[in-house]
Amino acid sequence: HTTSMEKVPDFLKGGTKVIDLSADYRLKDPAVFKEWYSVPHQQPALLKDAVYGLPEIHREKIKSARLVANPGCYPTSITLALAPVVTEDWVDLSSIIVDSKSGISGAGRKASLNTLFSEVNEGVSAYNIAVHRHTPEIEQELSALAKTNVQISFSPHLVPMTRGMLSTVYINLKHDKSVENLIEHFQKFYAEEPFVRILPLGEYANSHFTLSSNFCDIGVQVDKRNRRAIITSAIDNLIKGASGQAVQNMNLMLGISETTGLNFPGIFP
Amino acid sequence: HTTSMEKVPDFLKGGTKVIDLSADYRLKDPAVFKEWYSVPHQQPALLKDAVYGLPEIHREKIKSARLVANPGCYPTSITLALAPVVTEDWVDLSSIIVDSKSGISGAGRKASLNTLFSEVNEGVSAYNIAVHRHTPEIEQELSALAKTNVQISFSPHLVPMTRGMLSTVYINLKHDKSVENLIEHFQKFYAEEPFVRILPLGEYANSHFTLSSNFCDIGVQVDKRNRRAIITSAIDNLIKGASGQAVQNMNLMLGISETTGLNFPGIFP
Amino acid sequence: HTTSMEKVPDFLKGGTKVIDLSADYRLKDPAVFKEWYSVPHQQPALLKDAVYGLPEIHREKIKSARLVANPGCYPTSITLALAPVVTEDWVDLSSIIVDSKSGISGAGRKASLNTLFSEVNEGVSAYNIAVHRHTPEIEQELSALAKTNVQISFSPHLVPMTRGMLSTVYINLKHDKSVENLIEHFQKFYAEEPFVRILPLGEYANSHFTLSSNFCDIGVQVDKRNRRAIITSAIDNLIKGASGQAVQNMNLMLGISETTGLNFPGIFP
Amino acid sequence: HTTSMEKVPDFLKGGTKVIDLSADYRLKDPAVFKEWYSVPHQQPALLKDAVYGLPEIHREKIKSARLVANPGCYPTSITLALAPVVTEDWVDLSSIIVDSKSGISGAGRKASLNTLFSEVNEGVSAYNIAVHRHTPEIEQELSALAKTNVQISFSPHLVPMTRGMLSTVYINLKHDKSVENLIEHFQKFYAEEPFVRILPLGEYANSHFTLSSNFCDIGVQVDKRNRRAIITSAIDNLIKGASGQAVQNMNLMLGISETTGLNFPGIFP
Repeated sequence: HTTSMEKVPDFLKGGTKVIDLSADYRLKDPAVFKEWYSVPHQQPALLKDAVYGLPEIHREKIKSARLVANPGCYPTSITLALAPVVTEDWVDLSSIIVDSKSGISGAGRKASLNTLFSEVNEGVSAYNIAVHRHTPEIEQELSALAKTNVQISFSPHLVPMTRGMLSTVYINLKHDKSVENLIEHFQKFYAEEPFVRILPLGEYANSHFTLSSNFCDIGVQVDKRNRRAIITSAIDNLIKGASGQAVQNMNLMLGISETTGLNFPGIFP
Repeated sequence: HTTSMEKVPDFLKGGTKVIDLSADYRLKDPAVFKEWYSVPHQQPALLKDAVYGLPEIHREKIKSARLVANPGCYPTSITLALAPVVTEDWVDLSSIIVDSKSGISGAGRKASLNTLFSEVNEGVSAYNIAVHRHTPEIEQELSALAKTNVQISFSPHLVPMTRGMLSTVYINLKHDKSVENLIEHFQKFYAEEPFVRILPLGEYANSHFTLSSNFCDIGVQVDKRNRRAIITSAIDNLIKGASGQAVQNMNLMLGISETTGLNFPGIFP
Repeated sequence: HTTSMEKVPDFLKGGTKVIDLSADYRLKDPAVFKEWYSVPHQQPALLKDAVYGLPEIHREKIKSARLVANPGCYPTSITLALAPVVTEDWVDLSSIIVDSKSGISGAGRKASLNTLFSEVNEGVSAYNIAVHRHTPEIEQELSALAKTNVQISFSPHLVPMTRGMLSTVYINLKHDKSVENLIEHFQKFYAEEPFVRILPLGEYANSHFTLSSNFCDIGVQVDKRNRRAIITSAIDNLIKGASGQAVQNMNLMLGISETTGLNFPGIFP
Repeated sequence: HTTSMEKVPDFLKGGTKVIDLSADYRLKDPAVFKEWYSVPHQQPALLKDAVYGLPEIHREKIKSARLVANPGCYPTSITLALAPVVTEDWVDLSSIIVDSKSGISGAGRKASLNTLFSEVNEGVSAYNIAVHRHTPEIEQELSALAKTNVQISFSPHLVPMTRGMLSTVYINLKHDKSVENLIEHFQKFYAEEPFVRILPLGEYANSHFTLSSNFCDIGVQVDKRNRRAIITSAIDNLIKGASGQAVQNMNLMLGISETTGLNFPGIFP
């Protein structure tokens, strides 16, 4: 972070197209950037040009973009889980709660006490509840989709595994809705998507099945007693949550098949 | 389960005090038992006598009980997280969402494909969302505390570790409440408890620090932007969530020091 | 095992080429088969036709084979570690000791108490020391290379990870030999091999770097004080140790490029 | 290391008894210390006074010692595995090979790239083969027991778990020896030991069963075909391999029951 803020303008001047994996160009509003990242944005004008690189939402804009801001791993799993419903009038947009679980590799490869094997092994922990920097990015995308201001409560957690991420999303329904109906709604929304798989009735997302692939698996459940939808969404944080999505964006920007280089099924076990 | 239902009456007739680790005597209402466990209860009369063995809530009754129903692991971590707030008029009891993460040992020691190392390693998954059998037990205790019917949405998850459990609990606040104020509220509520530790400001529960101990660690956070309390609660599912709690109950029933045999700090790392 | 023994003849009669991943056709001598597998071999005549599918040793025979017996995972890692030295007169063939460490997936995907997550997690254990069924397969290949009868002591171990295998091989040297000299010897031996990587001086094999790839990494060390070579050899037991090697054999049998479908670098982390 | 070398003399002058967990006072010969630790020893005179703190071997000397050098974790598991046989004329002392597997906590709690979760998870690796600094300590003890110079080949490995250590020890037998006979020999040797458990026929050591305990489990096997004994030895590297052994030594030095504070069975799973 912040390094990209400085270097990107030079690349663009030279005519190079840029896919930025940092957070520097993800937020449209420089004031929101300053609020969450504590420093003023140095290139506010460029923020308007940057396209948020979630192909399932911004495919057409990505194709012609010169600067794509590749989403964070949490925002990818969460936005894909919520995009099909935040546009609907039968959900309560003020009720969104997101509980995410991530493998340790999300913390990067720097020597640190917190990510030592013996510290994180055999323990699950919460961190940065309600203050994680991926929050504004998620809210920006959900608000744009919903065409109204959307705020969420976001709680990230660390689980003792290298790769993989699962987000469990809670949203209140204004009317009764069957789980079959909701699954069908998700299937239609993502019918043409090569990398989103809607799980059948009774199955919940499991990050193990997305390991080392560019897939996002989404499971849909309804808590009838409390009229809530509970959506689980799993990705490999290093692929669909980072480099795989960057390749997907690059394919779109180059006008080649979107799935080029990404046609692998993942590994199991 | 169901085995205890049959055997317990004989033990009691013989004058033996019983601490039952199964779910058979946890629910007061035989109709609720039948709804969640699919079979009718064979000893409905005994349900009235049984005391729910959560010492922090029912200490006095446990002391004189002849039948204690030891709580499940999820209900222990969740009820301890919520007990201090469900009695308060500044919370919205209809908004409770519980997202729990458990180590694999909770599934018991029987040969099964789902709990093989290669199946669960390197993956986090949800299961039994909104239909887990621990739900009525939790709701029974919260309702008794709140003196009104309380329903929750409960989503259990499996994380790749042997022991440990973390529950993240969400509840809407009716009025603004500072995190400092909420932490103080929890500290007072559990001031005399030997096995509940309220974490200081800015810390979240981490099951690693309760590993192999009878402690329950509780972290309190407030999402000011959305006026929600987010409470994290960690235990060792096999100790405070099972056998340790049984020993704690036994100590109370025998009239000896409640912490006898439980004065170990856990292991780290 | 034993199923292949029955079915393979029918496939061959139909003109189909067969790559058998079971152990049924790996041993040349039906008496040895009976000794280690307790049942008599039903197709002793076919054993002569079967080619042991380790391309680095039997490439030319595999190309024209109609029946290839795909090696076990332990034999692959061990034979590749020892092939460059058992032909040399400066080693003591009676001194070979092999200590292997395997991930849990080698045990297969059947429900069993021994491979439950909570049983194998956080523990390293030995099993089948001196009696593992992969022993005769390894000895057959080493004996053929050395042109004399070679016996080894083989000790398999389980380590708490899903995939990966490391074999540490000990062999006494008859004369002093520098580690630089030995590494050079290995580099020459495998100079043309696409899937064997000899590590530079001071590096030891680490199964993590072969994860999800068809590579075998070999590290060479000399214990000068005791005049021993110590060779470490790492593979992914499910790829070079099973399915990847089968694809490599298939490519050879079909006359297409040996690396077809195997040109992936593995995953890290 | 080296810090203890400086501070210990002051403690001793003040009359304090010292149990040193560093390696500074483990080696009797200052020349050997310099060879393996690269610095000259500053207190060569004190080395004669220091007692090597392995109670199973030096119990009487520890009782009256003013300075006890607590053994390393590898030396504990290895010396206990070999002590019963290096004194016997039916073993070949020149043939000893030791292959050890350790959990990550042995590396200590300092921020380092090599011990990050994502580096060590899902991989098994060798390190410091034939050059590990615990080698002279092991050889010193074995030589003293055998009353002749003993050299070993020692290969340490890292496995992805927090605690636990397994050493697999190979030694050639000069005469045939049944496994039953060898097990009986070990049982007699350790008959009075509170913390050494000899496993029954057909069982191999598994570090999981020593987790969080002060026990050392030893499994004995004979490779009849090659006339070798293969001994597996498991400990918790942080307890019998460090702090637990220090407590055991302290108990002996204080003249109280040797097992005081160590009477816990470990945890499982």
